[in-house]
Amino acid sequence: MGENRERLEKQLGFIRELDKLKTIKRRTYLLDGSRTENSAEHSWQIALMALLLLEYGNEKNLDAFRIVKMLLVHDIVEIEAGDTYIYDDQAALSQHEREEAAARHLFGLLPEEQRRDFEDLRREYEEGKSAEGRFARTIDRFQPFYHNFLTEGRAWLEHGITSDRVKKIIKPIGQGSATLGAVADGLLEAAVARGYLGA
Amino acid sequence: MGENRERLEKQLGFIRELDKLKTIKRRTYLLDGSRTENSAEHSWQIALMALLLLEYGNEKNLDAFRIVKMLLVHDIVEIEAGDTYIYDDQAALSQHEREEAAARHLFGLLPEEQRRDFEDLRREYEEGKSAEGRFARTIDRFQPFYHNFLTEGRAWLEHGITSDRVKKIIKPIGQGSATLGAVADGLLEAAVARGYLGA
Repeated sequence: MGENRERLEKQLGFIRELDKLKTIKRRTYLLDGSRTENSAEHSWQIALMALLLLEYGNEKNLDAFRIVKMLLVHDIVEIEAGDTYIYDDQAALSQHEREEAAARHLFGLLPEEQRRDFEDLRREYEEGKSAEGRFARTIDRFQPFYHNFLTEGRAWLEHGITSDRVKKIIKPIGQGSATLGAVADGLLEAAVARGYLGA
Repeated sequence: MGENRERLEKQLGFIRELDKLKTIKRRTYLLDGSRTENSAEHSWQIALMALLLLEYGNEKNLDAFRIVKMLLVHDIVEIEAGDTYIYDDQAALSQHEREEAAARHLFGLLPEEQRRDFEDLRREYEEGKSAEGRFARTIDRFQPFYHNFLTEGRAWLEHGITSDRVKKIIKPIGQGSATLGAVADGLLEAAVARGYLGA
């Protein structure tokens, strides 16, 4: 039991850390406008969205489990690195370094093969080279964009985000799903027409 | 595009509803004690816990993806049925009926085969007859129990929960994982000794 118990203690230690992701605030508002969402509930939602929208992937035979795992895992580093607002160019400069350090420390709490699994999932998501990584990113970009649209651009207006910047940010959506990319383009046009963001 | 677009609209309608799970409060406190958790972030955490603790399942060759999907889906009905506190015997009387109605309405927003998929996952979890259903329940019972222990019984004390009731509630933990069941039994003993709940 000794060695096993030590292994379980490592896993439980990591699980206790996970709880902190519930306190990491994103800029995206809930649809009821009551508050912004946190990274834990965001991760839950995009995992389910990936399951439901998988059929719209550009590539066929996507490994759905891998995508779901990537989406459940990819934001964990924010526990130590914080959520980097996608329109914050200054914070983006240090984002990679902050997240690499967080991954080393946080995933380092796990038994070695689980550390490697989680790090591989995070890296595959970040690099976006695999079809699964691209589709995961499609969903991760679509969700906040869709929420911004549905809340009449509240976060965009608060942060002075213009349509050309949004256009750049939503570009990866089409790389994983032409269908969702087209939906996003249409919504962006409508958002501009309705004054949800600056042109 | 017409039929496809209608299908996508159904899926997006369901996804908009999902957002409400972020506002469904559970009784379990975050480990930092700042607030109680909501059902969306709880679902995220237990999905990851299942991945990390799968090796402790009583049965081998568990379908990890099915367990993760069950855990991501099983609380969605709370959007309409509310979270039923596991120690609220009065609310338990109507829980089944409320959740069945919520499942019919909420999952009914989806295209038929996705409605069936989600309903099957929810039912498999509720019935707990499959090995995957049992392990999913093990994790879903272990997490709030572990949080209650780590927060020195705060929710137990607030709701006047005694150790005999906790003992009954944590019984299913061992049915999916003897290892986690033994951990829970040990923690319960420690909780009583430390006055985290009434004996």
